[in-house]
Amino acid sequence: MRAWELQGVGGSEELKLVDRPEPQPSFGQILVRVRAASLNFRDLIVMQGAYGRVSLPLVPLSDGAGEIAAIGEGVTQWKLGDGVAGTFFPHWLTGPSSAEKIKISLGGGSTNGMLAEYVLLDEEAAVRIPPHQTFEEAATMPCAALTAWNALIEQGNLKAGETVVIIGTGGVSLFGLQIAKWYGAKIIVLSSSDKKIDLAIALGADAGINYSQHPQWERKVVELTGGLGADHILEVGGAGTLAQSLRAARVGGHIAMIGILGGTASELRVTDILMNSLRINGIYVGSREMFERLNRAAIQHRLKPIIDQVFPLLEARAAYDYLKTQKHFGKIIISLA
Amino acid sequence: MRAWELQGVGGSEELKLVDRPEPQPSFGQILVRVRAASLNFRDLIVMQGAYGRVSLPLVPLSDGAGEIAAIGEGVTQWKLGDGVAGTFFPHWLTGPSSAEKIKISLGGGSTNGMLAEYVLLDEEAAVRIPPHQTFEEAATMPCAALTAWNALIEQGNLKAGETVVIIGTGGVSLFGLQIAKWYGAKIIVLSSSDKKIDLAIALGADAGINYSQHPQWERKVVELTGGLGADHILEVGGAGTLAQSLRAARVGGHIAMIGILGGTASELRVTDILMNSLRINGIYVGSREMFERLNRAAIQHRLKPIIDQVFPLLEARAAYDYLKTQKHFGKIIISLA
Amino acid sequence: MRAWELQGVGGSEELKLVDRPEPQPSFGQILVRVRAASLNFRDLIVMQGAYGRVSLPLVPLSDGAGEIAAIGEGVTQWKLGDGVAGTFFPHWLTGPSSAEKIKISLGGGSTNGMLAEYVLLDEEAAVRIPPHQTFEEAATMPCAALTAWNALIEQGNLKAGETVVIIGTGGVSLFGLQIAKWYGAKIIVLSSSDKKIDLAIALGADAGINYSQHPQWERKVVELTGGLGADHILEVGGAGTLAQSLRAARVGGHIAMIGILGGTASELRVTDILMNSLRINGIYVGSREMFERLNRAAIQHRLKPIIDQVFPLLEARAAYDYLKTQKHFGKIIISLA
Amino acid sequence: MRAWELQGVGGSEELKLVDRPEPQPSFGQILVRVRAASLNFRDLIVMQGAYGRVSLPLVPLSDGAGEIAAIGEGVTQWKLGDGVAGTFFPHWLTGPSSAEKIKISLGGGSTNGMLAEYVLLDEEAAVRIPPHQTFEEAATMPCAALTAWNALIEQGNLKAGETVVIIGTGGVSLFGLQIAKWYGAKIIVLSSSDKKIDLAIALGADAGINYSQHPQWERKVVELTGGLGADHILEVGGAGTLAQSLRAARVGGHIAMIGILGGTASELRVTDILMNSLRINGIYVGSREMFERLNRAAIQHRLKPIIDQVFPLLEARAAYDYLKTQKHFGKIIISLA
Repeated sequence: MRAWELQGVGGSEELKLVDRPEPQPSFGQILVRVRAASLNFRDLIVMQGAYGRVSLPLVPLSDGAGEIAAIGEGVTQWKLGDGVAGTFFPHWLTGPSSAEKIKISLGGGSTNGMLAEYVLLDEEAAVRIPPHQTFEEAATMPCAALTAWNALIEQGNLKAGETVVIIGTGGVSLFGLQIAKWYGAKIIVLSSSDKKIDLAIALGADAGINYSQHPQWERKVVELTGGLGADHILEVGGAGTLAQSLRAARVGGHIAMIGILGGTASELRVTDILMNSLRINGIYVGSREMFERLNRAAIQHRLKPIIDQVFPLLEARAAYDYLKTQKHFGKIIISLA
Repeated sequence: MRAWELQGVGGSEELKLVDRPEPQPSFGQILVRVRAASLNFRDLIVMQGAYGRVSLPLVPLSDGAGEIAAIGEGVTQWKLGDGVAGTFFPHWLTGPSSAEKIKISLGGGSTNGMLAEYVLLDEEAAVRIPPHQTFEEAATMPCAALTAWNALIEQGNLKAGETVVIIGTGGVSLFGLQIAKWYGAKIIVLSSSDKKIDLAIALGADAGINYSQHPQWERKVVELTGGLGADHILEVGGAGTLAQSLRAARVGGHIAMIGILGGTASELRVTDILMNSLRINGIYVGSREMFERLNRAAIQHRLKPIIDQVFPLLEARAAYDYLKTQKHFGKIIISLA
Repeated sequence: MRAWELQGVGGSEELKLVDRPEPQPSFGQILVRVRAASLNFRDLIVMQGAYGRVSLPLVPLSDGAGEIAAIGEGVTQWKLGDGVAGTFFPHWLTGPSSAEKIKISLGGGSTNGMLAEYVLLDEEAAVRIPPHQTFEEAATMPCAALTAWNALIEQGNLKAGETVVIIGTGGVSLFGLQIAKWYGAKIIVLSSSDKKIDLAIALGADAGINYSQHPQWERKVVELTGGLGADHILEVGGAGTLAQSLRAARVGGHIAMIGILGGTASELRVTDILMNSLRINGIYVGSREMFERLNRAAIQHRLKPIIDQVFPLLEARAAYDYLKTQKHFGKIIISLA
Repeated sequence: MRAWELQGVGGSEELKLVDRPEPQPSFGQILVRVRAASLNFRDLIVMQGAYGRVSLPLVPLSDGAGEIAAIGEGVTQWKLGDGVAGTFFPHWLTGPSSAEKIKISLGGGSTNGMLAEYVLLDEEAAVRIPPHQTFEEAATMPCAALTAWNALIEQGNLKAGETVVIIGTGGVSLFGLQIAKWYGAKIIVLSSSDKKIDLAIALGADAGINYSQHPQWERKVVELTGGLGADHILEVGGAGTLAQSLRAARVGGHIAMIGILGGTASELRVTDILMNSLRINGIYVGSREMFERLNRAAIQHRLKPIIDQVFPLLEARAAYDYLKTQKHFGKIIISLA
């Protein structure tokens, strides 16, 4: 079978298309014929060697979907042909996070990911894909959509009528927008591009702030919320935005710490946290059970993930390079159809 | 009646003992004959003018206890002679925090506090003191004890068997130790003084770390918890300790952000928060209803607050100066008996 | 001013239209010029003398809306002309329920209600009405809408994609339907009328069960949920339906106990509760803070309450009689415009 | 190896001591050399054929502890000689309950239990026993202790200072007493025996009510709680006590529905639930993760389970018969040492 391997750390030239033997499922495993995989910002970091130690060669990408091509002994939940997506953390089935549950993630460290025609998974490390989604759409869900769901719904306990600030328009942010919209939140999107703000408003955002024009965007958020501040901030900017997010939130507000697009080290005023009784939750994808709850909601709302572009398998490097430009609006897919 | 007034910002010399007319309760108010007041680190900050704007002259101190000396029209909950303590936030009765509920606090901003022989309170802005406590003991509870209770129990949802790191041995920290001990937590105390560590262990701590000897104390915490990290960190050090606290906590652990003893601006690694799914809660004292729940627990456990020293009313300045030395172990009281 | 008084217990003939002096606000009170009031099943029970002891004469009805016509001394939150609705429990402002908070309710016991042209309220016992609602619409919210919100959102923590069984099509049930729809729940409505089921489906229900045709409706629910049972049951039927509701819920499911339309005494199989780990919450309207959260959501979703019929003030008895027939679909209003 | 089998349904004469081949661990399994097993009321119901369908012959008992005697391929968490207890539900690892997770329980239905010298378990279906406990003590924990922990701590969220009513002095009740004591609850024990009440008070209960002498014991509870009612009721009596428990609880109180000692069908007043905003949780043992949290607390508090009597393996029938008399105070053990 064909697969891409990361054979060194650096740019996309470290990715090599290789032939690997088609794997066979052991006890409790399923073999998935991957039909589509999807990229996350995390995959760039893995490629650059900044996502912890990596065992090379590594098949990259955490997110993929396909159908079951073979079933190992002892498997009880699946049958041949079932449509599945892998789970980001194969061992985080349910309950709260723990060191043990998140030790292994697909396409990182020493665990091969989904950018291969055939992939072995433990039978508990996959979820059924929503019947209305294509493989390409379903491939976008395991990391970005689940992160947004965990942030806003599982940890954030979002309620109708609350205000959500969505920072940026990357994968997690757009899913956050769609999910917050389901719940009837008032949504404020932050971007440096008027064009992306317009697209976000077309998707249901109530307002947009261009932070190039309003560098003190947190004041604008306070203004847009009648002086109170926002209930939830989907904080994907990391060091670049966190200090301001703390001041954009209302007293008792919630900040979902998700991303590090703007860097990792941040200088904060601790008093902003304590005197405003802020609640900050570090969000690291989520459990399989959360994924199943997300999919149930996705079915009920007939969620269509926003896809920017689909690259054929042979052009995987171009997909990575395009992600790096940050010009996309929606997910980037590699098709293995 | 006699009262101390803060007449300028700076050192304790700005405190002046004055004669003020004895106030009379209006509709819905009670008049409290204060018998004891207690100091918090916050009161030093107020004196130094660093706790937001202050209207001078200001009667300082949020914490005091005494008995009801007069009752205004329309008061339904109290009778003459009832023993009461004031609440830190007169308008935060119950439910989650909000800007409106925490706008006013005793002994800060433009609201007079408890360092006077007679003080007027709205009838909802006081709680009944536990019958087994003296006025001096009861005067220690409104800020420090309630903060620790809110941090560990209301927000932290502490469960028997969990590990709690207590930073320092100030007022909140010692109450945190006593409360965590009730619940059967494993308690690790951090201090720069071996003597204070010994006192903390005598109070029930399971282990102590002298951070002067172990500057990388977070590693010691991880070691003492079998490699997992702590479930809860009572973070009173602010900028001085927060970055390390993030690494002392377990995956999914809880950091109660309470204090700023070590400064307010802190450089953090955002990835520590998100990749370990940390939960950070800013804690700013608490509501009256939480205070009532705390007192109920205090009665059941016959809580005796740790008192370091009692100063007579005339020596209020000496009490402030002693607090500043940070040599105390337990609360500092000013008696108005 | 004109008001209706309940002067005895029994049928609507016990209601008398009387002239009462226009009240004047005391310290902390507001005077509301009521423009519309709305009926709940509870008001029939009050009239029949079955809702605890009643002090006669009593101005009935908990639900009404109007504008502020006068303001007492000490009032800080309101100005003349503000549109407000009263709160069902004047003393339950926020936080969890307690005996003290729910001791007094409007239009029950010895506390006059909203069926008068002018009504006095404590300033905390009112909420601002959503600007897009008419007084008639706003008058439907205090009891029925808040009960549904508390049941599904505050206690039930409803999440997108979950299944909700709505029993009947009374006031709480229709608001439950509208709120569950906001969240993207799968909604199953139970009724004995095909016509009402059709109306409910037009409002957004996903399925309906006519329990006259399917007396063992709980089996139908299990069938419609793929054998699992429902996540939430909005149980307004009381004794008539509870035993079946317990079997219509999934393992770990939630039953919001709200009403007693079908009687008060119910024979249950305790094992249904414990072996299915059911969660039963008694719901008794809600707090002012919940009402404010509900209104915020109502504004964001531009909620239009379903109104069946508006009666002029002089025909209040006819409104009661019509409620008794249970032929209505939507709220019954008495206009005091 | 020796094992007891239930070969029919009825009395203890249906138990037969048999020789069975020593089982061998498959992939992912461990073999436990059971050293002690413990009885629960549930095991009587299984024997009587009233606990759902049973596949005969069945090795009974859910609760047992021993050490690992052999390890299957693929096992990662255990080594030979580790002391373990089985989990009641082998498939309920973490997270909320579900039909799938609780489908199988040890010693019920068609799944053999712990009353055998050697037992096979999936490696996830066991927990490490606290080092300070004997096998006999550890054998008491899987059902009764975990049920009490789940009821009061996981679902009940018990806080120091709250009042807990413990109904009876069976296994769950005594663990409930010990756990509530850890948290500093005020504990009221209900029993028909003054002698058992005295024993409970010696274990830390604050008060006892003999319900033979006070048939309207719920009034006594209200009296003992200053007219408010209890915060938590550990309801093991089922139909015999539930209606009264509803009236013994405070407004907003919590009833943990656990047992059916007094029968299964109960006539309730629904209004007691809704007008007092009661919260009823059906409790059915708990997950493996809860068991681990319980054990962590047990270690910190050095929990010694109360054991009434230890029977040798050959006298298993006598152990059952003794349980049936309900004369015991503490757990009944069968030793396989």
